[in-house]
Amino acid sequence: MIAEILAVGTELLMGQISNTNAQYISRRLNDTGVNVYFHSVVGDNPNRIKECLTLALKRSDAIIITGGLGPTRDDLTKETVSEIFGRKLIVNENCLNKIKTYFKNMNRPMVESNLKQAYFPENSVIMENSEGTAPGCYIEDNGKVVFMLPGPPSEMKPMFEKYVIPYFYSRTNCRIVSKYVKVFGIGESSVEKAIIDLIDRQSNPTIAPYAGSDIVTLRVSLRCDNDEIPEARLSPVIESIKERLGQAVFTVEDETMEEVVANLLMKKGITLALAESCSGGNLSALLTSMPGISQVFERAVVTYSNRSKIDELYVKLETIERYGAVSRQTALEMAVGIREKAETELGVSITGIAGPGGATAEKPVGLVYVGLATPGNTDCRELRIRGDRNRVQRVACLHALDMIRRYAMDR
Amino acid sequence: MIAEILAVGTELLMGQISNTNAQYISRRLNDTGVNVYFHSVVGDNPNRIKECLTLALKRSDAIIITGGLGPTRDDLTKETVSEIFGRKLIVNENCLNKIKTYFKNMNRPMVESNLKQAYFPENSVIMENSEGTAPGCYIEDNGKVVFMLPGPPSEMKPMFEKYVIPYFYSRTNCRIVSKYVKVFGIGESSVEKAIIDLIDRQSNPTIAPYAGSDIVTLRVSLRCDNDEIPEARLSPVIESIKERLGQAVFTVEDETMEEVVANLLMKKGITLALAESCSGGNLSALLTSMPGISQVFERAVVTYSNRSKIDELYVKLETIERYGAVSRQTALEMAVGIREKAETELGVSITGIAGPGGATAEKPVGLVYVGLATPGNTDCRELRIRGDRNRVQRVACLHALDMIRRYAMDR
Repeated sequence: MIAEILAVGTELLMGQISNTNAQYISRRLNDTGVNVYFHSVVGDNPNRIKECLTLALKRSDAIIITGGLGPTRDDLTKETVSEIFGRKLIVNENCLNKIKTYFKNMNRPMVESNLKQAYFPENSVIMENSEGTAPGCYIEDNGKVVFMLPGPPSEMKPMFEKYVIPYFYSRTNCRIVSKYVKVFGIGESSVEKAIIDLIDRQSNPTIAPYAGSDIVTLRVSLRCDNDEIPEARLSPVIESIKERLGQAVFTVEDETMEEVVANLLMKKGITLALAESCSGGNLSALLTSMPGISQVFERAVVTYSNRSKIDELYVKLETIERYGAVSRQTALEMAVGIREKAETELGVSITGIAGPGGATAEKPVGLVYVGLATPGNTDCRELRIRGDRNRVQRVACLHALDMIRRYAMDR
Repeated sequence: MIAEILAVGTELLMGQISNTNAQYISRRLNDTGVNVYFHSVVGDNPNRIKECLTLALKRSDAIIITGGLGPTRDDLTKETVSEIFGRKLIVNENCLNKIKTYFKNMNRPMVESNLKQAYFPENSVIMENSEGTAPGCYIEDNGKVVFMLPGPPSEMKPMFEKYVIPYFYSRTNCRIVSKYVKVFGIGESSVEKAIIDLIDRQSNPTIAPYAGSDIVTLRVSLRCDNDEIPEARLSPVIESIKERLGQAVFTVEDETMEEVVANLLMKKGITLALAESCSGGNLSALLTSMPGISQVFERAVVTYSNRSKIDELYVKLETIERYGAVSRQTALEMAVGIREKAETELGVSITGIAGPGGATAEKPVGLVYVGLATPGNTDCRELRIRGDRNRVQRVACLHALDMIRRYAMDR
């Protein structure tokens, strides 16, 4: 079954909001085994809505429309669908009463235009809106189905889950289960090269690589019956990928690097403290976004000035003068210093040139040192990160997390 | 001039990522007076890409394609565009050398597929990629223009600003200039109520309120010729809004709270140091995202443990035992402590319960104290923030920034 998503609303074309509904709906439709082939966005214009809908009905079996159900003159979804299918709009008394009650309860005057929300195309199935006044509906005609959902995500999502998902589950007897193999520290093309034969050999599950700006994700997707246990066919493929890519695979679940690291630290009771310079507190913010992290996260210091590095981290003035604040030697002293001060198992440091200022001929923007102090050992990565200040900070943090992860895995 | 945006990538149809590029591009095209009538998303499938592009060429003058420029076999944008326009793909030696140099500098092996990125449709104009390896390009044919931009937003945006915006400015003698009046600390409906008569009275410029979760933004948009000076008509409207809302207006530019605060601090040379607890480094990360902040940002400490509050900030054990780590007294001692230690003009502290754990009957999730120590004075805000851990952290930081801003404005 092929589906497409049509969002109606000029505010999307003005760039005032992003079409996050399409992402949500796509992900959930894929879970049910429905293929989404297109997304479209069109403004509150009757002719263009009609054009888009006519095209959609030609190329897809199911059309999910979001938006255009509200009370204003701009809201045209039900009107246009009715016209295309040659159906009248008729009032639903039950909905009409609910809308009246709603305004009474809210102690707000109901304006005439609100009545519009109680009209639906003939023979449509009404979908209640638990979060707002505009109900949705769907109609089936000639083997096609058109769902009309409200635009605000807080109203759309519960309606979608309550009506649309069960609709498809009951018709497809099939779903798609995906696992995400996430890789850090190897580029997209090298990842693909390492597993190209696996990609070519597989048809179900399929393996599809895609690159974020810092992390490569391989999606392993299995199309299976509702009663099949998907792991039996997914696991061998995932294991083969892991064999090829080794420790660069940091998770096979739908989770972030910071989640992986925080969970490892909490599970093993590994305490840590951070000494950040160019990353400016971002590493601390990433780790402290995780609930429960206070069990293992002792403290962090963000030492921008040289004085604070000396004060807070016992970095030697001599080290800074001889090698610079951005150097392997300083990174190591920072990591060792914070570890001793906080009396934690790990001390982690980041020092570098985030840019745009501060670079010299020998020390360009993007040069970063990440230090790790562990019981009886130290380690340091020298990085050369391309991109703007935010990217340098972000990638530096990912490397620090990766070093923590590799330590914690072996511990 | 009518434009549409076509995003290419199966990952969008799977719902793995959201098409935020379309929002960004729409907003910016509207600024140049170009009307965006459609967004579409299609997967990495040559026939369907061709279908979408053929349709787009029928109904629009300008097509902005994002995605499908990468090195893998799935990346088909340039191939499909070439086919539709009957042009060959030819290698660009300059790009080829750049790609080779990139891999050499990064010390990473270049695989064969990377060469693909140096091929472009005949007679296309190449757009350099300052942030990645895949260059973009555009072709003009028969009164139509097709731009091909990379998918990752960090690569797309600089390329779009450098090449696409000037392209359109030079062709439309009209633009929309928007100013953003940003308000913190007053809810959306109160803001609207205070200025409803201004909204109703205006048609050009228009005033449109929209609420983020924490900040209310009023967009004031003027449609004018390229040679009109927009301030003459924008300024009086903005001044009226500011009169009504007072110091709650923190900017009338398209800038964030942290930008406003960082610029104020740098301009006036106000040094500061931070003591964060529940905000976990987020305030430090916000401020240090600003280039040049090291002039005034001395240090931050993230003191999760009680011991670190005592060690690092000279908070009295007695204070913590008597009032708790989350209390006005502790917040004030933290702010005073970090200020004295770092010898800065300001000391700022945040302590609270970010949740989901850690709450008690008297101290619920969302209770946060923000402290400010200034020369000869202290101040503290008690907040009760609704929402999840991330929101509590974010709103706490906004209040801290707001306190710093109000101090710096009067200084």
